[in-house]
Amino acid sequence: MKDKIHGGDVYRHKNALDFSANMNPLGTPEAVIRAAAESLREIHNYPDIRMEALRQGLSAYEQVPEDYLVCGNGAAEVIFMLALALRPRRALLPAPTFAEYEQALRLAGTEISYFELKEEEGFRVTERILEAITPGTEFLMLCNPNNPTGTLIEPELMGRILERCRRTDTFLAVDECFQDFIEEPERYTLKAALKDHEKLFLLKAFTKRYAMAGIRLGYGICSDLRLLEAMRDCVQPWNVSIPAQAAGAAALREEAYVEKAREIVRTEREFLRKRLGELGFQVYDSRANYLFFKGPEGLTEKALSRGILIRDCGNYRGLGPGYYRAAVKTHEENLKLLEALA
Amino acid sequence: MKDKIHGGDVYRHKNALDFSANMNPLGTPEAVIRAAAESLREIHNYPDIRMEALRQGLSAYEQVPEDYLVCGNGAAEVIFMLALALRPRRALLPAPTFAEYEQALRLAGTEISYFELKEEEGFRVTERILEAITPGTEFLMLCNPNNPTGTLIEPELMGRILERCRRTDTFLAVDECFQDFIEEPERYTLKAALKDHEKLFLLKAFTKRYAMAGIRLGYGICSDLRLLEAMRDCVQPWNVSIPAQAAGAAALREEAYVEKAREIVRTEREFLRKRLGELGFQVYDSRANYLFFKGPEGLTEKALSRGILIRDCGNYRGLGPGYYRAAVKTHEENLKLLEALA
Repeated sequence: MKDKIHGGDVYRHKNALDFSANMNPLGTPEAVIRAAAESLREIHNYPDIRMEALRQGLSAYEQVPEDYLVCGNGAAEVIFMLALALRPRRALLPAPTFAEYEQALRLAGTEISYFELKEEEGFRVTERILEAITPGTEFLMLCNPNNPTGTLIEPELMGRILERCRRTDTFLAVDECFQDFIEEPERYTLKAALKDHEKLFLLKAFTKRYAMAGIRLGYGICSDLRLLEAMRDCVQPWNVSIPAQAAGAAALREEAYVEKAREIVRTEREFLRKRLGELGFQVYDSRANYLFFKGPEGLTEKALSRGILIRDCGNYRGLGPGYYRAAVKTHEENLKLLEALA
Repeated sequence: MKDKIHGGDVYRHKNALDFSANMNPLGTPEAVIRAAAESLREIHNYPDIRMEALRQGLSAYEQVPEDYLVCGNGAAEVIFMLALALRPRRALLPAPTFAEYEQALRLAGTEISYFELKEEEGFRVTERILEAITPGTEFLMLCNPNNPTGTLIEPELMGRILERCRRTDTFLAVDECFQDFIEEPERYTLKAALKDHEKLFLLKAFTKRYAMAGIRLGYGICSDLRLLEAMRDCVQPWNVSIPAQAAGAAALREEAYVEKAREIVRTEREFLRKRLGELGFQVYDSRANYLFFKGPEGLTEKALSRGILIRDCGNYRGLGPGYYRAAVKTHEENLKLLEALA
């Protein structure tokens, strides 16, 4: 069953507290729900295929030209659009990482090699990757911080990876969806490099930042306008719904809410990390709004019997049984997680 | 500009009355808007990737097994999923027809031949098509009634087409999205043939039936379960949003509303047909909730200057300047259309 490879299945576990998906712990902002609700009065129309209001808002928020933006039915769709538009012959992916990169590339007919993230290196991307990027590597996708491990690639190494990709003529896509919850995100984003690197693509989402996974809205940023046009040709013109466009435009104004969530995540992540360590789990160096840890097999089922849904990471390529991911939520919720895992 | 090839651009024509998209003239049912609005409280979750409530409702509504159903972010996405899963080498499409069939097949690398719908045959699919379907035709897509012409393929001919496809081992996909507004739809749908024809696929949408184009929800029906699974692998697992799933489940209970709309369309289509004829336009035999007609060049701009948006069909493959499509709306609105065109 395909749905077993993902977290967030609250539909088959109706009363469980969900730590298996990684959302803003404050929930969806009221203004976002209100904007989406109001937009429902207009759904007899097709969505705006130019997405004018949304893209204007995004351009101001990201401080990039409107032309650089492409939107999708969730960031996941943007991954498919990119893979289908580029159709790289050979690609390099870290393992473990988010499963949809592989799914999209296989659909595009790409032959995939894997850069193994090693347990003894704390599942970090290290400079070993520079050698793995060869002139035959047409495409490299990195997730920074990585899902499910939460580890960050430091700016210095990322700079060297970008330089290496330029030399090998490798298209570099970086999924920055989880940078919303790290400290000093401005040091980690590659946004400043976009202008001079046409073969660089950044992926972003509204999903986690504003806890709006269910409405589906993600986007990409790139300076290669022909590529963006080719990506749009890989999907229908009405791929982003009216409520998603309205919710997105409203969400971008919620700066105080995101800042508050960042504070909570920072404090609570360190609290959870300490306590999980005290409980005997090996906790890796996640900087995102979730923690990745090693524990006894069968923990998912045990937690579920106590009403807590965590993400079993045993089915990620490059991992086996005994690896888990849990979202950082509010203090009260995190206490329940700890109680269930104790 | 890609957006010029579609109707429904109410965003660049804010005050115009929109006859360029073909929705239920009664607008979106209140219960659908309410269900979607309530579901927004849950958008911090991912959508249900099994779409249980929606598919159960659809199974009862369509009287087909739940297994036969595949849902998409609008019927347009389902077309892309089908093309990418089948990747036919050679396909046959009528011309003119809905542009997304061609877009999706080109993405799948398909070589396309066209079956020309001739003006002297009233743009109807005739038995000439039987000869155009050859053993090399791996895929045939028909739109019944056709967009933009509104013409229907009679059941007797459709039976022969299906039989011909079986002999030539051609996969037949029929877009039945506009059957909601024809008379005796049960005579025209190929639903009864699905069980015995694995190479038959029917496309349906909520878009027009319930005037909910902006929320994106469409579906396909097919008895080849492996194909449906392959189609799901061509998109992300969360392709149908929470509000779309909720709106769809609620919409299926709106039977009286759809029946009422059917009555209005029937009466108003004949009223419009007569009056457009009296105005000197050549009106073709549309049985859908829109009329296709021929008139002087430049009519779109003239209508727009009077606040009326109609669909210029000059950019459909197989058509040229002077062909137009206008939706059938309420009597009051239709009078405004006639006044603008007079």
